[in-house]
Amino acid sequence: MNSVEIKLVEKMPKLNNPIFIEGLPGVGNVGRIAAGYLVEQLKATKYADLLSSHFYPFVLLHQSSAVHVLKNEFYYWKAKKKGQRDMIILIGDSQSIDPIGHYEIVDAILDFLEKQNVKDIITIAGLSVGKLDKEPKVIGTVSEPEVIKQYSKYNIDFEAGSKIGTIVGAAGLFLGLGRYRGMKGLCLLGETAGLPEIPDPKSAEAVLNVLVKILNIDIDMSKLKEKIKEMDNFMKKINKYQDKALKELLAQEIEKGERPKDDELRYIG
Amino acid sequence: MNSVEIKLVEKMPKLNNPIFIEGLPGVGNVGRIAAGYLVEQLKATKYADLLSSHFYPFVLLHQSSAVHVLKNEFYYWKAKKKGQRDMIILIGDSQSIDPIGHYEIVDAILDFLEKQNVKDIITIAGLSVGKLDKEPKVIGTVSEPEVIKQYSKYNIDFEAGSKIGTIVGAAGLFLGLGRYRGMKGLCLLGETAGLPEIPDPKSAEAVLNVLVKILNIDIDMSKLKEKIKEMDNFMKKINKYQDKALKELLAQEIEKGERPKDDELRYIG
Amino acid sequence: MNSVEIKLVEKMPKLNNPIFIEGLPGVGNVGRIAAGYLVEQLKATKYADLLSSHFYPFVLLHQSSAVHVLKNEFYYWKAKKKGQRDMIILIGDSQSIDPIGHYEIVDAILDFLEKQNVKDIITIAGLSVGKLDKEPKVIGTVSEPEVIKQYSKYNIDFEAGSKIGTIVGAAGLFLGLGRYRGMKGLCLLGETAGLPEIPDPKSAEAVLNVLVKILNIDIDMSKLKEKIKEMDNFMKKINKYQDKALKELLAQEIEKGERPKDDELRYIG
Amino acid sequence: MNSVEIKLVEKMPKLNNPIFIEGLPGVGNVGRIAAGYLVEQLKATKYADLLSSHFYPFVLLHQSSAVHVLKNEFYYWKAKKKGQRDMIILIGDSQSIDPIGHYEIVDAILDFLEKQNVKDIITIAGLSVGKLDKEPKVIGTVSEPEVIKQYSKYNIDFEAGSKIGTIVGAAGLFLGLGRYRGMKGLCLLGETAGLPEIPDPKSAEAVLNVLVKILNIDIDMSKLKEKIKEMDNFMKKINKYQDKALKELLAQEIEKGERPKDDELRYIG
Repeated sequence: MNSVEIKLVEKMPKLNNPIFIEGLPGVGNVGRIAAGYLVEQLKATKYADLLSSHFYPFVLLHQSSAVHVLKNEFYYWKAKKKGQRDMIILIGDSQSIDPIGHYEIVDAILDFLEKQNVKDIITIAGLSVGKLDKEPKVIGTVSEPEVIKQYSKYNIDFEAGSKIGTIVGAAGLFLGLGRYRGMKGLCLLGETAGLPEIPDPKSAEAVLNVLVKILNIDIDMSKLKEKIKEMDNFMKKINKYQDKALKELLAQEIEKGERPKDDELRYIG
Repeated sequence: MNSVEIKLVEKMPKLNNPIFIEGLPGVGNVGRIAAGYLVEQLKATKYADLLSSHFYPFVLLHQSSAVHVLKNEFYYWKAKKKGQRDMIILIGDSQSIDPIGHYEIVDAILDFLEKQNVKDIITIAGLSVGKLDKEPKVIGTVSEPEVIKQYSKYNIDFEAGSKIGTIVGAAGLFLGLGRYRGMKGLCLLGETAGLPEIPDPKSAEAVLNVLVKILNIDIDMSKLKEKIKEMDNFMKKINKYQDKALKELLAQEIEKGERPKDDELRYIG
Repeated sequence: MNSVEIKLVEKMPKLNNPIFIEGLPGVGNVGRIAAGYLVEQLKATKYADLLSSHFYPFVLLHQSSAVHVLKNEFYYWKAKKKGQRDMIILIGDSQSIDPIGHYEIVDAILDFLEKQNVKDIITIAGLSVGKLDKEPKVIGTVSEPEVIKQYSKYNIDFEAGSKIGTIVGAAGLFLGLGRYRGMKGLCLLGETAGLPEIPDPKSAEAVLNVLVKILNIDIDMSKLKEKIKEMDNFMKKINKYQDKALKELLAQEIEKGERPKDDELRYIG
Repeated sequence: MNSVEIKLVEKMPKLNNPIFIEGLPGVGNVGRIAAGYLVEQLKATKYADLLSSHFYPFVLLHQSSAVHVLKNEFYYWKAKKKGQRDMIILIGDSQSIDPIGHYEIVDAILDFLEKQNVKDIITIAGLSVGKLDKEPKVIGTVSEPEVIKQYSKYNIDFEAGSKIGTIVGAAGLFLGLGRYRGMKGLCLLGETAGLPEIPDPKSAEAVLNVLVKILNIDIDMSKLKEKIKEMDNFMKKINKYQDKALKELLAQEIEKGERPKDDELRYIG
């Protein structure tokens, strides 16, 4: 197995100068919520799954008793009117569980996007700012300074450089690595109080409000909270059973002595 | 070395639409016991070994003083009468010791199975349910909802979706990844009290009772406990000496200072 | 993605028997400071970036709000007068974060250098000597004993063999692995008190004083402290925000239970 | 870089049905001492170095101030009289520091040996038996039961199966993996008290006494202790400086906060 595999589930769409939108799990799940809601509201079409040995080696169970292997999913949407652009939207269950995997997954996706002539990238993430008294702002970072101009008329705070040190994971690497392929990138960071267990719909909404203007689309924002609840139920179920399953397996292995602790094994010559 | 190597030890068998049965070590060793007993009772023929750098880097010693490298083993069995199917059965000593290896091993096996035209997969595992007052039930999960119909007439509880969150390791990944190759998968999970150090023959028997009906075969169940004891002796011996060997080597390396702790090394630039 | 990628950002320069100078982050940042100052004072031209999945999977933010992916950078400089040599200088943000990566990165660079006919290597690092009462000395180690003669007329202490046990990371591996390609290597180690959080300009200056003589160049040493302060501000900003970002993300993942601890996962079969 | 590289330093020797002898660092350093002494006494010729990214990423310093990259070394020796066999002897500084590397290194060596028509393998290791009142015995394990006959006339205890559970690392894997290439393997384990920091010359001598009979050679055993002391001085120096260097680098990285703890990074998505 290649460490990253992109499997077409539909015929490769013919897209015209598509823009790539990415929203994967992370701080406040801002990216996942915003991109997932976009997919739903636009009724975008799924055309590819990404599997990776850098995801956890288990499957989740759907209510139907069918298994769900961890994956990222590619959707496309075709522009309906002038001033809109074709889109490729990436959402997913997981990011890499190890450092190397982040690079390998992002790079494999960039290969895939390059074949589809993607020149513009927008990634979405949350930015934890501790307590949040006011409405969440949307902070912007870019692949290179010139890109700021392109997005200057939207309500984006481009003072990120004095406020943020790093962006961890895919949202940042798409910009950093995409640049070497001539792709212009924008990362939209929704401020969030960052209580980690709580997906932040307000922050996702703030990002979506900026995003719909950039994309020149019209989506019904009224169902956002409801949809978040739906997604959230699935995630909570997973978390609960997963923790349980892991602990039991763990207990077993350790008590049985069947496998030495990994820490120990490292010293063995 | 490829991280997974499948070595034929016999000529590749010519099988007719074979079904794949997998039982590797795990919770209560339900899968390993059930699949191992099937191999024995059917007098199935071994034809390939799977080696992997994702197994522990040691060899076990047989009573004969010959070494035993950790491996998984492929057996085949040819249908004897109408209503039966040719089978490929996988049993083994170990699953991957790191997350990436689970994907790589399962994927390499799926490549191997695809060449043999496998379209159906049955994996076996234990499901830890804490205290178990009643007879163990057999819970079923599937690669996609339609597969349930195919197995609905057997005594399988298909309410897994509301009871289980995840299946860790090969038993789940075969279904999740096999689906992308058009393989229809069923995972049989035998309920077990999950006292980890104790292989659970009752749970394995419950799974076998379902399995023989699916496979339309007749096997003598009376020797199950005896066989489990045999397998168990080998495993216990291994565990005991292995722990001892590891501790000694560990002690040596640490005291000698010959190798820094791995944790420490990570920070070194 | 290959685990190491060298991306030309300018046409490959035509160099005449170039000498390779390496200075990456490490003890007292002696190597990074010295090589970085050399690049600045010589107005060397950047021609390639090295990216690697063995660097941390995040991007840093510049003051301009543009992202900065972790990288190493290749510069070249052409000899201006007789007695000077063309140079390739390597500086960078990071070394590998895992043991395997050190070998892979150094080897990929040696491939790149071999194509450019590099026969001589000088690496720069700091050598922590605890308290330092006197002026820092410059200690030299070599790829093979014969190389000492070549550098014997400079103010280098070649009694390293009785003082130092190991050189960790790129500075040492370039010599050890370069030797198999017929490259003659010198590693200049500047003594430093080794207070880790403080870049040591005095040690870097001591190394530079030796280096300019070897390279037969003339550079203005008066701006060294100022330049160090500049570099240092960027690094400090990074460190501060990075720590913060990491802690928040960490807290989130753990509380959410979205991902089991990696230590735990290792035992799961 | 391939994770394992074998570099010829001499022309490939033409050997007649050579037997392979392996002795790498491990319990009591029995293997390294015995094989190293054999190389010295036979004046065997070095012809290849093995480098690997699975060794620690540092170089050691020789007294001459030249660096020493961690490696394994291949020597050959040609039979001088009838009843003797050509030999390939492997000694080295290190075994793999991670589980995967053990498999990759052993497999790369087996590829190399297969090209040289090696059919017989003897590996040497120490076996820690706690307190040792009597002379150390030499325990034998084999790649398959039939091999015992071949070595039955030597003073080897072949009751290993009831005494030992596992052999960790190269000494065992050569037998386990070599078998799939039709190589017949013997592992000689010298009993040792297993005080880890002390190389055990008595155990090495016991193994050598068996080995010289198998190989039908005559070597002067009187210099064994002296030679061990020599080897040991080099190793002790390494250990001392290495620990020191690692600690300092560690301290630096952690205090600087330049790199988050690896444990922490793993949770970041």
